[in-house]
Amino acid sequence: MKEVEITEIIIREYLGSLLRALDSDVIIAGGGPSSLVAGYYLAKAGKKVTILERKLSLGGGTWGGGMGFKYVILEENCLPILQELNINYTKKGEDLYAVDSIALASGLIFNAVKAGAEIFNLVSVEDLVVKDNRVKGVVVNASPIEIARLHVDPITMKANAVVDATGHDLEVVKVLLKKNNLKIFTETGDIVGERSMDVEEGERITLEKTGEVFPGLYVAGMAACACFGGPRMGPIFGGMLLSGKKLAEILVEKV
Amino acid sequence: MKEVEITEIIIREYLGSLLRALDSDVIIAGGGPSSLVAGYYLAKAGKKVTILERKLSLGGGTWGGGMGFKYVILEENCLPILQELNINYTKKGEDLYAVDSIALASGLIFNAVKAGAEIFNLVSVEDLVVKDNRVKGVVVNASPIEIARLHVDPITMKANAVVDATGHDLEVVKVLLKKNNLKIFTETGDIVGERSMDVEEGERITLEKTGEVFPGLYVAGMAACACFGGPRMGPIFGGMLLSGKKLAEILVEKV
Amino acid sequence: MKEVEITEIIIREYLGSLLRALDSDVIIAGGGPSSLVAGYYLAKAGKKVTILERKLSLGGGTWGGGMGFKYVILEENCLPILQELNINYTKKGEDLYAVDSIALASGLIFNAVKAGAEIFNLVSVEDLVVKDNRVKGVVVNASPIEIARLHVDPITMKANAVVDATGHDLEVVKVLLKKNNLKIFTETGDIVGERSMDVEEGERITLEKTGEVFPGLYVAGMAACACFGGPRMGPIFGGMLLSGKKLAEILVEKV
Amino acid sequence: MKEVEITEIIIREYLGSLLRALDSDVIIAGGGPSSLVAGYYLAKAGKKVTILERKLSLGGGTWGGGMGFKYVILEENCLPILQELNINYTKKGEDLYAVDSIALASGLIFNAVKAGAEIFNLVSVEDLVVKDNRVKGVVVNASPIEIARLHVDPITMKANAVVDATGHDLEVVKVLLKKNNLKIFTETGDIVGERSMDVEEGERITLEKTGEVFPGLYVAGMAACACFGGPRMGPIFGGMLLSGKKLAEILVEKV
Amino acid sequence: MKEVEITEIIIREYLGSLLRALDSDVIIAGGGPSSLVAGYYLAKAGKKVTILERKLSLGGGTWGGGMGFKYVILEENCLPILQELNINYTKKGEDLYAVDSIALASGLIFNAVKAGAEIFNLVSVEDLVVKDNRVKGVVVNASPIEIARLHVDPITMKANAVVDATGHDLEVVKVLLKKNNLKIFTETGDIVGERSMDVEEGERITLEKTGEVFPGLYVAGMAACACFGGPRMGPIFGGMLLSGKKLAEILVEKV
Amino acid sequence: MKEVEITEIIIREYLGSLLRALDSDVIIAGGGPSSLVAGYYLAKAGKKVTILERKLSLGGGTWGGGMGFKYVILEENCLPILQELNINYTKKGEDLYAVDSIALASGLIFNAVKAGAEIFNLVSVEDLVVKDNRVKGVVVNASPIEIARLHVDPITMKANAVVDATGHDLEVVKVLLKKNNLKIFTETGDIVGERSMDVEEGERITLEKTGEVFPGLYVAGMAACACFGGPRMGPIFGGMLLSGKKLAEILVEKV
Amino acid sequence: MKEVEITEIIIREYLGSLLRALDSDVIIAGGGPSSLVAGYYLAKAGKKVTILERKLSLGGGTWGGGMGFKYVILEENCLPILQELNINYTKKGEDLYAVDSIALASGLIFNAVKAGAEIFNLVSVEDLVVKDNRVKGVVVNASPIEIARLHVDPITMKANAVVDATGHDLEVVKVLLKKNNLKIFTETGDIVGERSMDVEEGERITLEKTGEVFPGLYVAGMAACACFGGPRMGPIFGGMLLSGKKLAEILVEKV
Amino acid sequence: MKEVEITEIIIREYLGSLLRALDSDVIIAGGGPSSLVAGYYLAKAGKKVTILERKLSLGGGTWGGGMGFKYVILEENCLPILQELNINYTKKGEDLYAVDSIALASGLIFNAVKAGAEIFNLVSVEDLVVKDNRVKGVVVNASPIEIARLHVDPITMKANAVVDATGHDLEVVKVLLKKNNLKIFTETGDIVGERSMDVEEGERITLEKTGEVFPGLYVAGMAACACFGGPRMGPIFGGMLLSGKKLAEILVEKV
Repeated sequence: MKEVEITEIIIREYLGSLLRALDSDVIIAGGGPSSLVAGYYLAKAGKKVTILERKLSLGGGTWGGGMGFKYVILEENCLPILQELNINYTKKGEDLYAVDSIALASGLIFNAVKAGAEIFNLVSVEDLVVKDNRVKGVVVNASPIEIARLHVDPITMKANAVVDATGHDLEVVKVLLKKNNLKIFTETGDIVGERSMDVEEGERITLEKTGEVFPGLYVAGMAACACFGGPRMGPIFGGMLLSGKKLAEILVEKV
Repeated sequence: MKEVEITEIIIREYLGSLLRALDSDVIIAGGGPSSLVAGYYLAKAGKKVTILERKLSLGGGTWGGGMGFKYVILEENCLPILQELNINYTKKGEDLYAVDSIALASGLIFNAVKAGAEIFNLVSVEDLVVKDNRVKGVVVNASPIEIARLHVDPITMKANAVVDATGHDLEVVKVLLKKNNLKIFTETGDIVGERSMDVEEGERITLEKTGEVFPGLYVAGMAACACFGGPRMGPIFGGMLLSGKKLAEILVEKV
Repeated sequence: MKEVEITEIIIREYLGSLLRALDSDVIIAGGGPSSLVAGYYLAKAGKKVTILERKLSLGGGTWGGGMGFKYVILEENCLPILQELNINYTKKGEDLYAVDSIALASGLIFNAVKAGAEIFNLVSVEDLVVKDNRVKGVVVNASPIEIARLHVDPITMKANAVVDATGHDLEVVKVLLKKNNLKIFTETGDIVGERSMDVEEGERITLEKTGEVFPGLYVAGMAACACFGGPRMGPIFGGMLLSGKKLAEILVEKV
Repeated sequence: MKEVEITEIIIREYLGSLLRALDSDVIIAGGGPSSLVAGYYLAKAGKKVTILERKLSLGGGTWGGGMGFKYVILEENCLPILQELNINYTKKGEDLYAVDSIALASGLIFNAVKAGAEIFNLVSVEDLVVKDNRVKGVVVNASPIEIARLHVDPITMKANAVVDATGHDLEVVKVLLKKNNLKIFTETGDIVGERSMDVEEGERITLEKTGEVFPGLYVAGMAACACFGGPRMGPIFGGMLLSGKKLAEILVEKV
Repeated sequence: MKEVEITEIIIREYLGSLLRALDSDVIIAGGGPSSLVAGYYLAKAGKKVTILERKLSLGGGTWGGGMGFKYVILEENCLPILQELNINYTKKGEDLYAVDSIALASGLIFNAVKAGAEIFNLVSVEDLVVKDNRVKGVVVNASPIEIARLHVDPITMKANAVVDATGHDLEVVKVLLKKNNLKIFTETGDIVGERSMDVEEGERITLEKTGEVFPGLYVAGMAACACFGGPRMGPIFGGMLLSGKKLAEILVEKV
Repeated sequence: MKEVEITEIIIREYLGSLLRALDSDVIIAGGGPSSLVAGYYLAKAGKKVTILERKLSLGGGTWGGGMGFKYVILEENCLPILQELNINYTKKGEDLYAVDSIALASGLIFNAVKAGAEIFNLVSVEDLVVKDNRVKGVVVNASPIEIARLHVDPITMKANAVVDATGHDLEVVKVLLKKNNLKIFTETGDIVGERSMDVEEGERITLEKTGEVFPGLYVAGMAACACFGGPRMGPIFGGMLLSGKKLAEILVEKV
Repeated sequence: MKEVEITEIIIREYLGSLLRALDSDVIIAGGGPSSLVAGYYLAKAGKKVTILERKLSLGGGTWGGGMGFKYVILEENCLPILQELNINYTKKGEDLYAVDSIALASGLIFNAVKAGAEIFNLVSVEDLVVKDNRVKGVVVNASPIEIARLHVDPITMKANAVVDATGHDLEVVKVLLKKNNLKIFTETGDIVGERSMDVEEGERITLEKTGEVFPGLYVAGMAACACFGGPRMGPIFGGMLLSGKKLAEILVEKV
Repeated sequence: MKEVEITEIIIREYLGSLLRALDSDVIIAGGGPSSLVAGYYLAKAGKKVTILERKLSLGGGTWGGGMGFKYVILEENCLPILQELNINYTKKGEDLYAVDSIALASGLIFNAVKAGAEIFNLVSVEDLVVKDNRVKGVVVNASPIEIARLHVDPITMKANAVVDATGHDLEVVKVLLKKNNLKIFTETGDIVGERSMDVEEGERITLEKTGEVFPGLYVAGMAACACFGGPRMGPIFGGMLLSGKKLAEILVEKV
């Protein structure tokens, strides 16, 4: 029966993907813009990279532009990334470029998959594997099970590097700190938290702080900014894209 | 202040898009696969096409593959579309090809925007403009206002052709029938409704029935299938893509 | 890493089970007492039987006894089944036996799995495959996806016989009738519906009407009773167990 | 088509209002009585004042009178304001005047808009722009997006003075303190919080404490009272109106 | 104690209003634009008019403009009403005038109260008093009690004329038809229902059909339009205002 | 341990009550005023009467008076009942007496229990036992189980007469009609339904129609009125009390 | 019209009650058993006592007995109270008496009203009037308004003594402590909180600690126990009744 | 009537079970794998053991396997338990065995009841009886009452040993610590809390820490692990089963 043939192919394909993802070079929690850019460049460099997203669709906060007005702004230093990903932009100010947020979201996702990043939607990272004072993997569950509040055990994926790219919620770093008596590589040893808005400062800190916060655990995008107490930025996405690219460069070396 | 400069660009860009969309060649309600393919080919043919999607992201039921296993199946007759849109596929059976559903969803969206289709997310079509026994436009609202159950009046967009591509819910056709004492171009004059699953029959009917159901109103994808009483198909997407292409061909002629 | 080794085994085992279930002799929708008894006897007779249950646990309405008082009642004609399944009972009236409802629920499940029935929890049957006026399989989805109201396509499982054992809701028969213009083998051609309580009459009709209601589709337990307009029974479970056994006997012949 | 002509006018008008509001003399968060009175007097004095209200209607807690009995009480010192705004009142005690709360709410709103204050409903202030230890603007979002819990970035509005008139919730001051390591101009450097009821004391403190609490940030009405630990007042609105007037007098000088 | 003195005044004032409202010339259910205009002209003509609104604030769908863009459109024939109510407008097309929706909402309410209409918020009309085949009064309850789903009996208010101005929901006419075996003065004897959008036709029918639908019961605004099967109009408010005025003229004669 | 001694007494007492209630002369579904009055007079006459109430407290709609104003009205013909139950009243009009609704609710309950009626709270009647075309008992469940939406079977209580005193919802009659192909003793054979308000007519019909509607099944109070199409009454309770008394008189003869 | 006559009487009666309650000797927050007993004895002694209950019915946790088994236990020292209130009991152990919980709940309420206590349901105490370091009254709102989450100001009632009888939630004491920088008369100056169960100790402490906790503010019943750190008791109600009686004796002296 | 006969048997059986359970050797809160294994071995050793589970079904987190893939993993040291309970397993790695999670869940429950453990579902432990610094019993309520948020008092059960087997929520230990000023037998005297995942370490600590944490109170399974700060384990169940067995061995000695 053709219906069952179709079903069988889907199950086998998914299983193959899932089994391959159990042992990755890099696992990125969260599927927003910094994650997708990092995934693109890591995959392009030949790394085995897995992106885990709780929702059904990827792209994080990109889709809605500013206040639901579907455009976001980027600066000149991001043009090379847009050009590489074949995403259109329009010059609007001296150093400001407008991009249709739906084009940006879909373009980032499409290019990351195309480059070879393995993306899983409907998967939430609920904990980490921590051994010998080092993050060695992630503990994941199906997000629909989580939404349905069913009591079901998680499974585990192993990686040389785990990235928290979950935005200012810092979900992965938070669970690490909450469940284990540890310090991360910030001044306070704890999450400092996102400050009120200041675009230039925010973009600067995001890029600067992208990197490792605990052995085996990295932060990128707004997660990097919020972790080290940088200010928020709103619908300007340069910091996100550049942070993703920087993270990829760091990890290409390390893993 | 740079923050305000960014804000102003976004507002102006969005306003421009919105004003342009008030008078379209084609307005498609729903942003799933048949809508996106139709949008791609219509835009490519130079038509002014507007896609309206209630959710924040586009892609409809594509993202989740089958039962959340992120793959969908396509048949050989769709390969030209995939090739044109630069979307990867793998041969899996005699006539069956597996596609990563995240690649398919993002690829369809990315290509539609790239080709020039104007896509609005967070917009729901709540009614139609009907004059002289012909659909002449859509009555839309911001979907967050709808979700928040606020009592706010809608606005109107005009088009030479309106397409219901809202899947088996047939939201647009339903509101037309419920609010006006009319008949559509099915055997019963009413929506017949989706039947139980039969993949081959479903794909055949979807393609066959794609077209006009009332002066000025068209159906595509699962909406076409359900409107005329065809069976459902599950995670095989050939009918969807071919229906979108057929719709574009019809409308390129007509509008 | 041991955590990943564990994960890999679980995924592979589940995959094996799922693939095997794609082509069954009998698929039973609903995991209550009549389903489990039928599953036990079918598996014991060497049939490939798959039980699909929406909830996390099996047993249906057995666990709560009467009004949450955790006992149910059975009559003498069920003792052979209880004895075969090694479930304790206590004589309480001339022809009435009390059974701890937790023992009954767990005993029915445990014996069905032990006998070789393949049971899936967290799976909901949302539709059927109907071709040539015959039910040829079921269309299923992950119930957490359903609960989370995510728009995700289902997959398909094929069987020689499909059983609706979903209790008085008759979920499978209902979807068959609602989506297709068909008649079932009742006097009215439609579901008659459960009547008010009458224990003896209810048990008699349940047993009598267990069987085929449409080519390829069977009913058992309260689904049989409600389908043909029998009265409800409350916390007496004889009809359920005997119906399950009768169904197994019918299907052992047929499939 | 007339429907589209109407739509186009609405969009253009709103755009104009929104763009003008991006750079204001004063932005007031919250649209209750002290906000509206301040807005009235500031606009009358020629200042560019913007009021941002999360709900669909303005007026805050005025509409419901006391316990839903639609009257509020004012004292003699408020009569000049009522007279200027053309709102009716009835003498009821030595120094107490009853006002229909629906008349008061609508009268305050109507006069504020009439005087030239730009009022936005359905807008929530979710953060501030803070640079060089000074509040320089507000970070806002569409409140329906917030209610629908959609992940969408905010936009920014700039002002010489920002006013927290959000009542005892002090939403703006709270976000300033929570997100940045700062002190405000209270004795403790933090919000002191509203005390139990004492009408006379409450009205006195509300008026006295109306003013700046951080460079660029002001409090008025119950926000002033709660910020500095004054007691609540219930359905007597004199303090609210006088606080709004005082704030306007301060800001007319400053901005 | 001053707090109690305030409380006592409020209770006594409310009681007075409530007792006076028990016997009105006209009771209008719903507090949207047609209701408020009717209330204004009826009160101005010396009639005892009571407006009952379920929500905390009045104004109905006026506040949100079109799709939350806070402007509505009126035509030239409404300018006399706007001028009488002192509400600002701007000419925008040949026959189209833009009005700030917040100004319109508050202006309509403020003027209705000022003219002497007694407005109650938080009151819902849940039924009618019907005797000798004539509506003789309304059965009302506190809407918070309704929201809290508490089982509490309603009270009764008497009027010579009851108006359903609850918009296209037609709450009052619906309860009349649902609970009593009656016909109303439409062609079908039943509610015909709102049709899809057509602004000019909608405005024409709204005005034409404003009037009595059953002995003692009248319709105005969108309720008149929907009752007789007219099309919807969206954010153009001329029909609403003119309908309110026409209703007042009819009732000034009749009651 | 005293705590366990207390627990044991409670369980044993409840068990005794519950077992005794399994075989009653009269079972009344619903614990509002007509039920309690009927229960009082039946118990006083020596009948074994059981009242089943879904909520935690008894008294139905009595507690809230009219619109939450805690008074209800009774007429002179009810004074003998009030006097017998020792409930205070105040003459307020020619034939109208005001009663504190809290006194009435608690007085009706207290006297019913005192007289010997067995009252169960937290029990909902979900179905009936129907044999030989006669209602022979009720099928009940714990209402918290129902609220928690748990799948648990009900238990059964037997009675010579079952009374539906569930108000205008007519829950028991409705389940009888919905689940069985039967006619009741109204003109239509079906529930006619409550009409709009008319106090005098309502009180007359309530009393007149109190009685049997199907062999073994009776209606009282608003259930009698609504069953036969009488109008509603609001916060006047004479019909309720007299209906309860009449029902008791009928059943004292019959059971 | 009789319906309006009824309405007018109800409104006038309620208003009279409400205005009288604005100045009470004692206001008791919470309508559970200790409150009702205190109300009974205070009213009997001629004091003007007002009981305020958030729910529609009174009686607090009495109705449900233990775990929904509708009996509670009392000891010999409570028999005089039961006898005075005419409530039945049955001897069950050496010093333990079983009482039907529905009889107890209704009997306590009925007797309190009968004795002259003014009871308001649907009223919640949301704050206090505190002046000169003394509680001088309560700040109340309609609880349906609270449940409907409407932003409406409260009103005020004055009393010589305010009693927190809200059980272990201690709602009144909590708001006093949370909103004002004060200490109460416990060892810690703060609420100590209910301990785990110990019936004898619980009953002893409840009685011992019944009394004043802050100038003008008293505690009774479980509120007294929890305030001073006593253990919980479960379904034994002696402590509650005796605490209510003791409180009455204290306040008869003091107010 | 047979229906009532059935009801009576169920009530009497339940009552008998409940009364017997009031005085147990061991009461285990929570019905997951460690609880069921402990219950099995304790009952087998002749102890009177009572298991209390809040949900309708038993088995805790066992049913869902890993991420809903219905298999769990056990190690060689658990084979004797599986063999004794007649549960199937398959060797999958050097020391890893796969078990169908539905077989494991039902097998653990079935064997525990069969061995004589008295299991109650729908019962939640909301507090403890604590006297003389020792846990002497549990305070329980019907969980549907808890879910329905009804204010109903609990009842009490006495035991020589109470076990917290509620998983990492540690519901019983938490209530002990929160309500009483006490220390438990951990290093900090407080709950340490579950750490991030480490399977081997988790299994080791779970087993090691199974035992008494306060006089009369024990922990088992994940509760033991989390109480003493061990890491989580995911879908490997060896630690759970061995902890249950160890607890039984300890308590067989002690009670």
